[in-house]
Amino acid sequence: MLFHVRMDVHIPLDLDADVRADVVARERAYSQELQRSGKWPHIWRIVGEYSNVSIFDVASNDELHDLLSGLPLFPYMDIAVTPLATHPSDIRAG
Amino acid sequence: MLFHVRMDVHIPLDLDADVRADVVARERAYSQELQRSGKWPHIWRIVGEYSNVSIFDVASNDELHDLLSGLPLFPYMDIAVTPLATHPSDIRAG
Amino acid sequence: MLFHVRMDVHIPLDLDADVRADVVARERAYSQELQRSGKWPHIWRIVGEYSNVSIFDVASNDELHDLLSGLPLFPYMDIAVTPLATHPSDIRAG
Amino acid sequence: MLFHVRMDVHIPLDLDADVRADVVARERAYSQELQRSGKWPHIWRIVGEYSNVSIFDVASNDELHDLLSGLPLFPYMDIAVTPLATHPSDIRAG
Amino acid sequence: MLFHVRMDVHIPLDLDADVRADVVARERAYSQELQRSGKWPHIWRIVGEYSNVSIFDVASNDELHDLLSGLPLFPYMDIAVTPLATHPSDIRAG
Amino acid sequence: MLFHVRMDVHIPLDLDADVRADVVARERAYSQELQRSGKWPHIWRIVGEYSNVSIFDVASNDELHDLLSGLPLFPYMDIAVTPLATHPSDIRAG
Amino acid sequence: MLFHVRMDVHIPLDLDADVRADVVARERAYSQELQRSGKWPHIWRIVGEYSNVSIFDVASNDELHDLLSGLPLFPYMDIAVTPLATHPSDIRAG
Amino acid sequence: MLFHVRMDVHIPLDLDADVRADVVARERAYSQELQRSGKWPHIWRIVGEYSNVSIFDVASNDELHDLLSGLPLFPYMDIAVTPLATHPSDIRAG
Amino acid sequence: MLFHVRMDVHIPLDLDADVRADVVARERAYSQELQRSGKWPHIWRIVGEYSNVSIFDVASNDELHDLLSGLPLFPYMDIAVTPLATHPSDIRAG
Amino acid sequence: MLFHVRMDVHIPLDLDADVRADVVARERAYSQELQRSGKWPHIWRIVGEYSNVSIFDVASNDELHDLLSGLPLFPYMDIAVTPLATHPSDIRAG
Repeated sequence: MLFHVRMDVHIPLDLDADVRADVVARERAYSQELQRSGKWPHIWRIVGEYSNVSIFDVASNDELHDLLSGLPLFPYMDIAVTPLATHPSDIRAG
Repeated sequence: MLFHVRMDVHIPLDLDADVRADVVARERAYSQELQRSGKWPHIWRIVGEYSNVSIFDVASNDELHDLLSGLPLFPYMDIAVTPLATHPSDIRAG
Repeated sequence: MLFHVRMDVHIPLDLDADVRADVVARERAYSQELQRSGKWPHIWRIVGEYSNVSIFDVASNDELHDLLSGLPLFPYMDIAVTPLATHPSDIRAG
Repeated sequence: MLFHVRMDVHIPLDLDADVRADVVARERAYSQELQRSGKWPHIWRIVGEYSNVSIFDVASNDELHDLLSGLPLFPYMDIAVTPLATHPSDIRAG
Repeated sequence: MLFHVRMDVHIPLDLDADVRADVVARERAYSQELQRSGKWPHIWRIVGEYSNVSIFDVASNDELHDLLSGLPLFPYMDIAVTPLATHPSDIRAG
Repeated sequence: MLFHVRMDVHIPLDLDADVRADVVARERAYSQELQRSGKWPHIWRIVGEYSNVSIFDVASNDELHDLLSGLPLFPYMDIAVTPLATHPSDIRAG
Repeated sequence: MLFHVRMDVHIPLDLDADVRADVVARERAYSQELQRSGKWPHIWRIVGEYSNVSIFDVASNDELHDLLSGLPLFPYMDIAVTPLATHPSDIRAG
Repeated sequence: MLFHVRMDVHIPLDLDADVRADVVARERAYSQELQRSGKWPHIWRIVGEYSNVSIFDVASNDELHDLLSGLPLFPYMDIAVTPLATHPSDIRAG
Repeated sequence: MLFHVRMDVHIPLDLDADVRADVVARERAYSQELQRSGKWPHIWRIVGEYSNVSIFDVASNDELHDLLSGLPLFPYMDIAVTPLATHPSDIRAG
Repeated sequence: MLFHVRMDVHIPLDLDADVRADVVARERAYSQELQRSGKWPHIWRIVGEYSNVSIFDVASNDELHDLLSGLPLFPYMDIAVTPLATHPSDIRAG
């Protein structure tokens, strides 16, 4: 079941540089593990912004919330979730 | 080069039913041809709306505008285009 | 799996009165059948507006889109879907 | 009498960790007591956000304001209240 | 129990003049009857707009929705309802 | 001459508690004096928000700005003023 | 007493040309009479828009609403009124 | 003196095809004459939209309004004008 | 050449009182000098807000930006500029 | 391939003056080097704002994101990117 997720990152400018580097590194590892598991099949950078558009593939709303609220950058992000359905013109459908 | 495209369809309620069926059928054929060509790799329905989120893969801005303005439903849609770049955490990058 | 759905109805003022009465009657029957099935557990009127807030309980995004796009009033409504998860303070949770 | 309430939590990132843990624990206890009393019949997490959608069942606007302004997290939240009425298609309505 | 209600009137420019005059006259009579009953204690025109700000005094959300949806101009208005509580500095309180 | 005034209070979370208590107490006294004078005939709390909707009755725009900018909480508030006129359906009008 | 008024004109594209010419001519005469009377001391066109920004000088909110609602183009305009006060740095004040 | 102008075109779907073709042809001729004169040095299509971003180089606000309100498509467009100044980092400045 | 300028002042609440008093005094002197020169012919306070609406009369966009960016309060303000043209109904126009 | 880029600068008021001067100087050098290379053909100041509108000419979305995210002021800016295509009325086109 697919969801469209936009994440806008707002790390405070005065966050300690080591804390920042650490959380960014953990975010990267966390994201890549989910990508490898198949639960986060797409992630793209929005040009000119510290933001991404992602596609998640999960079994339930609860699983998606667990994954997103577990993001190391979660406290520093605005996240907007849009549920997706199969498009009737999708050549890969049915 | 990837672009995120959201399309919201607003066909007038009083459009002739045959005209409507024709334009929707042509839209479907047009979309599927572009999907097969690889230029329109993803299309998803937004749940509860007559809208889609799509990913286009084109060589230039001009090519993207030509493809979008050629959509049979173009006169009936609001379209928002967001350019995408490779995300540094994407496991398929680099 | 629960979803929060807001529906705002905009039936054209010049719609034929019989057509209007018919679509409203079919909407009511459609809604009540889904309520009885357990897929539409809550529906509330927003005070002062021709709008409702509803909770749907479905197995997937695709099922929800099928239910919503099948609403007799679907062509006359703006619909906004918000996926819900279990709240950690919910006394009925786990 | 039912009200739809959306709460968006914005705890400052630099709030002392003990103060934060304490206020979150008190919020949980306060919420669960109201849930048990029947005045707060529903609470759901919005997927991907530190927000909830709730339904309150109270005797008056004044009672609702007293309950909401007494929330331990009240100083850290944006709250939007929407009054609800019985929907004419609700199968549980008279 | 008090509610703040804003009504913005959008009568179609091409509505038949007699129909318009009739609905406006019925709106006026309906409003004045509710004012006399005490349920609609205040109504003010917003300067420069075909809009009003009103205060309603009703026993429940359901009663308010019945009153508002019964307005002869209801099909031509956007209505926004805000529940009000006693202000702690109000000299007429307690 | 009546004006509709909405005030949204945003006292900084880290304001010294004594300073806060003092300014809130002075606001209350200031408001009640104006209420008694007849210049601030109505004040209501918006349910769930640290906000009020008020009606002012003043002789001029300048007088209203003097009253509002003199509010002890003025530096902590967003204020929106809407001029009101007599509504032609008001039973108390002429 | 001064008010800032913005008027955005939206005459329907299919309005009869003679009706349109007549209402525009009457609007011009009405405006110029108020300008000569001193009640409408300033009117400016917003570059690129069928809109104006005006300053009105009236004795009361009721007088302003009477003047604005009497505009021949009133049914075709969106109007936004902002009350103005003397600025403490105005060299013509005091 | 430079101005940034965004134009969004909204030609009614039911406009007569010949009328439409004529106004679009006249718009093109009008635009190209101004481009050749140096008053409209840049015009770009916004990808996916029936909109353009343009730069105008004129002697005054009045001249700009005359040029824009004379556009054959003016009755069908929303136009937003932003005045531009020399940027201190512009290598062509000074 | 006239421009409509709205300025919204947001001086931080914790700015040193002497610094604040100094910048406000310099703003006043700067404004009054420009008013006397004829370049800032109008300044009005918006009722209930720490904001003004002003009219500037300058020779070019560059001159206007120099004047505005030189305001002592410039770092603390949001400024919105709207270019104005002569209105065809203005009785003072040619 | 052209892109329209708007940059709004929000340097914190309490940033150390030397740090600020340094980042602004580096921004200027960085911008001018890109202007000389032909990748940043236009930059204009928006009158009254600490903002610019720019045109970039790059080979790909990835190149544009690299250029923008490398701006010394990137952490202090909101950036909005709009892809541009050739306008059919552009006299310099084909």
